[in-house]
Amino acid sequence: MPTPVREIHHPAASELDLATILRTVGDSVRLSIVRLLADDRERTCTQIQEEIGLPTSTCSYHLRLLREAGVTRTRAEGTERHITVRRDDLEEHFPGLVDVLVSGR
Amino acid sequence: MPTPVREIHHPAASELDLATILRTVGDSVRLSIVRLLADDRERTCTQIQEEIGLPTSTCSYHLRLLREAGVTRTRAEGTERHITVRRDDLEEHFPGLVDVLVSGR
Repeated sequence: MPTPVREIHHPAASELDLATILRTVGDSVRLSIVRLLADDRERTCTQIQEEIGLPTSTCSYHLRLLREAGVTRTRAEGTERHITVRRDDLEEHFPGLVDVLVSGR
Repeated sequence: MPTPVREIHHPAASELDLATILRTVGDSVRLSIVRLLADDRERTCTQIQEEIGLPTSTCSYHLRLLREAGVTRTRAEGTERHITVRRDDLEEHFPGLVDVLVSGR
């Protein structure tokens, strides 16, 4: 029997709230994660923590906040989780936001 | 003898930090204030609270946070304080940020 896929919750695009998103990315670690992911390559939590230099537990925490705010998307593949920036929805609802996050200091 | 002008502190443009700015505007009231001020007209605290519908004390608090984060500029004229968006510095350091704040939902 295949292992049931645990649903990973993402807010609907219609629920995205700019203030929530700004508050969530208004943290130097989470901003670094978004900047890293802005090349639109999928990365696992392990890859992100290695590239940025974070403890594993901290990384999962920040990734959960980013996903719940609608900034990132997590795709399950077996036990692995692949994370990307949710660029399509962000660009549609808040055009230019990702660029500002990437280009700002 | 003229009343000494009390210095109103603003962070230097070189000190502006994107994460701090995002965290500060990531609040529905402060986001509303920035959107109101985005027409680049100066407003007093009283005008802002009337246009948005806030209690006076709350308004001063939010305006202080916005000024300390470098989002707004406060100009003293007698006992009055005139507030504007700090558009020149924001645009120079974080191009497109003010537009994103105004156009997003």
